[in-house]
Amino acid sequence: MSYSIPAPINSPQRILMGPGPSDTHPRVLAALARPTVGHLDPYFLQIMDELQTMLRAVFQTSNALTLAVSGTGSLGMEACVVNLIEPGDRMLVCVNGVFGGRMSDVAARAGAQVSTLERDYGEVFGAEEIAEAVRRLHPKVVGIVHAETSTGAWQPLQEIAEVVHAGDALLLVDCVTSLAGAPVEVDGWGLDAVYSGTQKCLSCPPGLAPVTFSQRAVEAIDRRQSKIASWYLDMTMVRNYWGESRAYHHTAPINSNYGLHEALRLVLEEGLEHRFSRHRRNHEALKAGLKALGIEYSVAEGLQLPMLNSVWVPKGIDDVALRSQLLNDYGIEIGGGLGPVKGRTLRIGLMGEASTARNVLLFLAALERCLLDQGLRLDCGAGVAAANAKYRNGE
Amino acid sequence: MSYSIPAPINSPQRILMGPGPSDTHPRVLAALARPTVGHLDPYFLQIMDELQTMLRAVFQTSNALTLAVSGTGSLGMEACVVNLIEPGDRMLVCVNGVFGGRMSDVAARAGAQVSTLERDYGEVFGAEEIAEAVRRLHPKVVGIVHAETSTGAWQPLQEIAEVVHAGDALLLVDCVTSLAGAPVEVDGWGLDAVYSGTQKCLSCPPGLAPVTFSQRAVEAIDRRQSKIASWYLDMTMVRNYWGESRAYHHTAPINSNYGLHEALRLVLEEGLEHRFSRHRRNHEALKAGLKALGIEYSVAEGLQLPMLNSVWVPKGIDDVALRSQLLNDYGIEIGGGLGPVKGRTLRIGLMGEASTARNVLLFLAALERCLLDQGLRLDCGAGVAAANAKYRNGE
Repeated sequence: MSYSIPAPINSPQRILMGPGPSDTHPRVLAALARPTVGHLDPYFLQIMDELQTMLRAVFQTSNALTLAVSGTGSLGMEACVVNLIEPGDRMLVCVNGVFGGRMSDVAARAGAQVSTLERDYGEVFGAEEIAEAVRRLHPKVVGIVHAETSTGAWQPLQEIAEVVHAGDALLLVDCVTSLAGAPVEVDGWGLDAVYSGTQKCLSCPPGLAPVTFSQRAVEAIDRRQSKIASWYLDMTMVRNYWGESRAYHHTAPINSNYGLHEALRLVLEEGLEHRFSRHRRNHEALKAGLKALGIEYSVAEGLQLPMLNSVWVPKGIDDVALRSQLLNDYGIEIGGGLGPVKGRTLRIGLMGEASTARNVLLFLAALERCLLDQGLRLDCGAGVAAANAKYRNGE
Repeated sequence: MSYSIPAPINSPQRILMGPGPSDTHPRVLAALARPTVGHLDPYFLQIMDELQTMLRAVFQTSNALTLAVSGTGSLGMEACVVNLIEPGDRMLVCVNGVFGGRMSDVAARAGAQVSTLERDYGEVFGAEEIAEAVRRLHPKVVGIVHAETSTGAWQPLQEIAEVVHAGDALLLVDCVTSLAGAPVEVDGWGLDAVYSGTQKCLSCPPGLAPVTFSQRAVEAIDRRQSKIASWYLDMTMVRNYWGESRAYHHTAPINSNYGLHEALRLVLEEGLEHRFSRHRRNHEALKAGLKALGIEYSVAEGLQLPMLNSVWVPKGIDDVALRSQLLNDYGIEIGGGLGPVKGRTLRIGLMGEASTARNVLLFLAALERCLLDQGLRLDCGAGVAAANAKYRNGE
């Protein structure tokens, strides 16, 4: 075999305004680079306790079983599904985007009898239709996505939790994109199994999946007749490592957990309410700027996520060329559409550290330039001016 | 909920001489802290290509399907098993330690009809007994551990690969602890599915699991009748993200992959042969030193792993107190026994960056002090002197 040794990592400093990962704070990067210790080192065990305390604060829960799964957000999804589902169990999955679709795939692989409730991309579900489906199907678990990263739609959850519980089912929720950018009230709303990822509004590099399970969910896990399909994700063992017995399960990703620790510290220093307001404020300014450039959201007013802005590609504009120019000329990453809206939408993230006025204004200026270069006629500077006006006159 | 924000990460600089994680090179820590880019950023795609090239060099393979699974070594085990096993498939697992036992558990959860071949802790398997079992059971897959981290036993593989292939089965091998510390010749020996972890002889923080699949293994995956039980680990999708189509699957752990990139660069800069020699040399010196202190290996001569030295706890010595003193007074982490030898063995790692003469000598000096403190009578300084003599007179 012949090979040459490549050059060392020298990654460019991007402005990450896509659907994730988001920009990482220098304090998080510095934490990642602290010396590795063993996974049973008393120092690391203390860090695990602190992570659990901070994750509970961010999830707004007192759930004992709250921890970081050693994989990315999609593994968090799999962790929630495989712990709750036994082969043959019925699961109702609400699908209005790529991630609802993924959940239904994961559930089928876990052996669930999956029924789906479907809505078009960009729409959300009402409590009544879910209540009806729960009465009809008697599922053990209902799965739904809080913030559909593929569409930018914001799913209300509180009433849905009520109707799911009325049907004696468990509510499993994808909060990958919402956690730490918009309210996620696990106890207040009554969510039973919730997963997230670190690389969205937590602004930590991808690699860990925060999860939390309610007491009802834990009881369902403890009542299982069959072993959990995944050894790695088996919460009946993982919880012992995170719990008092500290029984070795797998070697935790030490440095990734350091990074999450610092990211959570940043979230709590800012405070959840301030953080949510900041995400809203920057979203409103971006929206005003986009509107001034004649760009429309692909999600109805009132359902738009503050951290993930999905808009239609303007007529006559080449989506791929636009995104390449933004990346190459301005260092700005945004996302394209997924699934049926591939090539038709742009996804502009304002997540965590990336949700700043500076990013909003720079992005609008760069976008204007790219659109002009593709021949669109625009009222020059209108986007930046409208966003700025929103900042001055807004909340 | 009330909580206080904990202090920032300030992890101590340990000397990691346990069963992993091992010490991390400062260059790897620095790479971890480079700015995060997107998982479809052209820069990251180039890093993925380079990672594949370097992983192939370290695995000594030209296998196309060679990549890093986004989880720790145990998830690499699960990735190999769930891709090769369909429900009802027969798998033969060779169990002579904790990790063989884990593999058999993972296989059963994946729906395999599992048969085990068992040997006592510290022993290894001969090709003849495996040939006999393969003829008798006709398994689709035979699983075996190359370097049993729980016992320190070194399993020869080449003849076993021959008898497994003679029985038309696939050979699945755990190289978590051996890779980059001792020869792992995937193509030369004919291994079909191999997984490792980053935190052993690659000396990278835990969080990724290098895997490689032979053409025969890929054909078996492509012939499956049923979907792979894990969406996250489904190589028929993961390979597209690592391959030419770059189809989005899950968000890769960007910064962890930066760390692995630098760790692999360090391995290849040193060269595999030099690296293996270094591991052998430090192992021989440690062994000479331990012998001079009257400490015996729990594995027979000739089967002892160079990177994981498992020895009996000397009579009258309190294992937990000894390890605590090593950690607290000297910053040295070593491991205790697992499974049936819990409390009876010590596991001393000399992995990757931690395999140095300085660590060997310091450890022997510290160990001597701890043993004296527990009342053992020793020939003072004999351990360090014997190790030193080995370095001067050895290879």
